[in-house]
Amino acid sequence: MDYCDHRLRVRYAETDQMGVAYHANHLVWFEIGRTEFCRQRGFTYEAMERETGSYMMVAEVSCRYRRPLRYDQEFIIRTRIRQLRKRTLTFAYQILDAQQGTLLAEGETKHVVTDGNGRPRSFPAHYLHYLQGLDASKK
Amino acid sequence: MDYCDHRLRVRYAETDQMGVAYHANHLVWFEIGRTEFCRQRGFTYEAMERETGSYMMVAEVSCRYRRPLRYDQEFIIRTRIRQLRKRTLTFAYQILDAQQGTLLAEGETKHVVTDGNGRPRSFPAHYLHYLQGLDASKK
Amino acid sequence: MDYCDHRLRVRYAETDQMGVAYHANHLVWFEIGRTEFCRQRGFTYEAMERETGSYMMVAEVSCRYRRPLRYDQEFIIRTRIRQLRKRTLTFAYQILDAQQGTLLAEGETKHVVTDGNGRPRSFPAHYLHYLQGLDASKK
Amino acid sequence: MDYCDHRLRVRYAETDQMGVAYHANHLVWFEIGRTEFCRQRGFTYEAMERETGSYMMVAEVSCRYRRPLRYDQEFIIRTRIRQLRKRTLTFAYQILDAQQGTLLAEGETKHVVTDGNGRPRSFPAHYLHYLQGLDASKK
Repeated sequence: MDYCDHRLRVRYAETDQMGVAYHANHLVWFEIGRTEFCRQRGFTYEAMERETGSYMMVAEVSCRYRRPLRYDQEFIIRTRIRQLRKRTLTFAYQILDAQQGTLLAEGETKHVVTDGNGRPRSFPAHYLHYLQGLDASKK
Repeated sequence: MDYCDHRLRVRYAETDQMGVAYHANHLVWFEIGRTEFCRQRGFTYEAMERETGSYMMVAEVSCRYRRPLRYDQEFIIRTRIRQLRKRTLTFAYQILDAQQGTLLAEGETKHVVTDGNGRPRSFPAHYLHYLQGLDASKK
Repeated sequence: MDYCDHRLRVRYAETDQMGVAYHANHLVWFEIGRTEFCRQRGFTYEAMERETGSYMMVAEVSCRYRRPLRYDQEFIIRTRIRQLRKRTLTFAYQILDAQQGTLLAEGETKHVVTDGNGRPRSFPAHYLHYLQGLDASKK
Repeated sequence: MDYCDHRLRVRYAETDQMGVAYHANHLVWFEIGRTEFCRQRGFTYEAMERETGSYMMVAEVSCRYRRPLRYDQEFIIRTRIRQLRKRTLTFAYQILDAQQGTLLAEGETKHVVTDGNGRPRSFPAHYLHYLQGLDASKK
């Protein structure tokens, strides 16, 4: 499987006065998608940060909102790797309704691997192999 | 002036364990930029929602992160209208360091005007005139 | 069982530059605890709001922080009812490490039942019976 | 003046589907109150953290909510020191409507001074003198 599905519910704190999930939360859900993607591949993003001092700084994000999400609605954040380069990594995401599978939103995040001071570096070799072979752009 | 500058500081709550402002907050700052843009043009977004039952649903967002922002750093959110159509509206934003004026991030949000049930409608005429003549794409 | 356990992980977005979960998030986790407590009792808070127009406005909160939570740490939010009156409801919470069961934080929230305009009203009868018999103060 | 007033507006992101500011945001506003209190006293909390490696860990919070705050509502966060000890510090807060001065919420936060690993230490002497003479409990 080249993607990772993770199930979440919209929190009350995530709603706004329009009665739907506030749009910035989608970026938080994308990040949870990345975390779970890594875990499914066999490592934790937390350990990578701690052991190698490497960070995946967010360089770009984009999101298209198709349908609003409501409080307590169950949804799936589906994460895949779009592109894996030596120093950059792009994830693609879909947010799907957990019951009907309807597409609710989709987006991408582009990351640059850096050290703790924000200087670009190569992806830690030990962790790179967990992700290789998953680059959708190479298929 | 076709743009609106609003000054903010990074909150402690907005930082993450990388020691910089978490990237989803930029979308929140963009929204504050829109709110202040409307206020500078002579109306409040709050009154528009309340009086006309019209909402500017976020349909798309994008952001490029150039440099991290740190806790308590003062910055400017600069907002302008990129495109104004009958039912859609695109804002463009720059986040600038308040001291040096360095560009820290930039992005766009595209909005669809809807009623309270999410159905598209035209921009309320009474409020439209506040924004006309500001469409950068028409110049 | 007079309490409800729900398992969560600390999100990256929830950390701050001290490298631990920012303290306001505990209130968000308490709220998730309430939501899951209701679900376990046989109803959803979402349906109660929608069907009866009744809200559990937060009137008071308190929290004691014992140990910090770290990014990706798995924890349990344990929720019980401390006191159930005609128009008020108090929940008590414990945040426990999911592995060792260590107490990480504990707190309470007191709620007043209101209509959509914030006026106090009695707890909707249909929903009240789901919660009765759970009042720890009566035992 | 033994207190510090700082003016803010409720952000759209801070509202929830009840149409009012979500209650966890009050803790974020309290923290902004502390930051501005320190700035008014002549130092920045940011510099204290950076220069001394000392942190004011939040040990306890409490808040009473009197009236809801609405989107774009202007309010004042009023901060004072309730108690200053060698290793602990208690702040008290009031949230006031900016127009009428009505009390909207009030609360306290108790802090323990720690090093970067969470071990208690004394308040850095250089910074302590900025706060002395402000302890309301000694008057």
